[in-house]
Amino acid sequence: MNQSSLKDAWAELTAYSSYVLACHIKPDGDCLGAALALGRALRSLGKDVTVICQDPVPENYRFLPESDTIVQGSVRRDFDVGVLIDSDQPSRVGNVAEIIASCATTARIDHHLTQEDFGDIKIVQTDISSTSELITELFYANEVSIDSSVACMLLTGIIFDTGAFKYSSASSRTFEIVSQLMTAGARPANIIRSIFESKPLRAAKLLGRALSSMRATEDGVIVWAQITVADFRELGVDDSDTEGIVNTVAAISGPRVVMLLRETEPGTVRVSLRSRDQFDVNKIAVAFGGGGHAVASGCTIQAGLDKARELLIAEVRRWMAS
Amino acid sequence: MNQSSLKDAWAELTAYSSYVLACHIKPDGDCLGAALALGRALRSLGKDVTVICQDPVPENYRFLPESDTIVQGSVRRDFDVGVLIDSDQPSRVGNVAEIIASCATTARIDHHLTQEDFGDIKIVQTDISSTSELITELFYANEVSIDSSVACMLLTGIIFDTGAFKYSSASSRTFEIVSQLMTAGARPANIIRSIFESKPLRAAKLLGRALSSMRATEDGVIVWAQITVADFRELGVDDSDTEGIVNTVAAISGPRVVMLLRETEPGTVRVSLRSRDQFDVNKIAVAFGGGGHAVASGCTIQAGLDKARELLIAEVRRWMAS
Repeated sequence: MNQSSLKDAWAELTAYSSYVLACHIKPDGDCLGAALALGRALRSLGKDVTVICQDPVPENYRFLPESDTIVQGSVRRDFDVGVLIDSDQPSRVGNVAEIIASCATTARIDHHLTQEDFGDIKIVQTDISSTSELITELFYANEVSIDSSVACMLLTGIIFDTGAFKYSSASSRTFEIVSQLMTAGARPANIIRSIFESKPLRAAKLLGRALSSMRATEDGVIVWAQITVADFRELGVDDSDTEGIVNTVAAISGPRVVMLLRETEPGTVRVSLRSRDQFDVNKIAVAFGGGGHAVASGCTIQAGLDKARELLIAEVRRWMAS
Repeated sequence: MNQSSLKDAWAELTAYSSYVLACHIKPDGDCLGAALALGRALRSLGKDVTVICQDPVPENYRFLPESDTIVQGSVRRDFDVGVLIDSDQPSRVGNVAEIIASCATTARIDHHLTQEDFGDIKIVQTDISSTSELITELFYANEVSIDSSVACMLLTGIIFDTGAFKYSSASSRTFEIVSQLMTAGARPANIIRSIFESKPLRAAKLLGRALSSMRATEDGVIVWAQITVADFRELGVDDSDTEGIVNTVAAISGPRVVMLLRETEPGTVRVSLRSRDQFDVNKIAVAFGGGGHAVASGCTIQAGLDKARELLIAEVRRWMAS
């Protein structure tokens, strides 16, 4: 969005009195950081703001200033404007969708590529790293003051959505903004430590089991790791503790496709796929009723681990041959 | 260094005709990126430049433009100026020290804190992320053109020495420079992939074994992981494949001290220590004849794994109680 459309959007958005800002289910650093930053900016203009989320704020985001003000679940009251943050449609916010639906005016602030056209007010840009980066631009264009708390919130979103600056979605402009947010008081080293490097010991051991299980097809083109029902049970962990594992598994040279298979219950295998060499793994996920992107996708297969792996390898081979 | 001292230093450095730029032993991204960038800049001024290193360029740095021009080992000829890159003293460059010693003029370009005072020409700044960032400032101050190859070299150094922007040594200015190097054509996502995420499969499995071995003291204050002689042998790896493992082990919440113990041969245990909560692990390393920094240090203990761990835990407890 250019300066003038960011100015128009801000004027439109700030013309009301009360706001409910909705985070999506399973909230992440981007929706939390973006919602808290926007909430703080609107409150500084004298607005009445509630930030809400169906699910609780995960432990590793409790360092965020004002994260304890996020309302979990439902509220019984009316708001002038219902704002989806980092979501393309109301279904992404779970049971908070009702509250959004009850607002006379709706808004969407998002960076996701989508067919959806939700929102009376739209602040949407897809070629930007994160909703938090988009909100930073919105603040810059409208001279909204960015104190150290807001800088920390926005930088958290950028860091989460760029995998700590690792993804190609982090642009030259992103790094320029990071520099400015640091000048405003945000500390990337602390944020990275909090959100990515504060796993419980059991999650580290689970990563260990996954990496130890790594195998490659004879030609080295497909590499996989797997987590069994027994692994989950013995370590006292669940599928939420597998977040990030596939990326560590994929941090090797050689393969074109990397797969992480998790047997979450007997006969159900959740699969994460990563591409390492232009191969489109979305096609594989779609073949099994899943989806995602060309470089990262996922699906669920109703089968045992060995059978699921066999089916996946056959499907990858089929596409490679085509 | 301020603009005027960077200008003086460049004038001094570029007053000669032939240069040998020496990388340190076990070359890393910072010395390689910095040496190649400086070499390219000097050559563009018509200078005769040889970049040299005792050790070969590691596989994961072969993507660097002109990395195949780095001379390994020795050369029989004279140079006007011998330059230490990213080293505080000639002993850091191994058998290349002789060539440096034979030059009438010596220079040192470095960011390490040291008692050394080597070099007729000194371009040294310690409160900067990397030698590559210092060379970027040197280029900016003297309007040296930064093409996409030089930008890639310099960004590689910055990325390596900041752990891909994770360490607090990455300043607001560092991120500003990264933004500019991207505009010049460098791609951080590709560089990070090449240098940090292209391990061989066997190294990933070794990381898996280390993580699976993780244990904590009953109070959770000390966490350790260990790699046995059998692990090294069974996976066909050596101690060089353990690089980075301690940082993944330390990426958990809870402990104040994290230790990685590697039994590289029976009765010899190499130890890496990481602090997670202001505890000074350098004191522990020094107690066993090693050293390092308050947050990261290392030592070698002549003992079996169990005995070495026992000694380390006792030493940590002693300091915690004092």
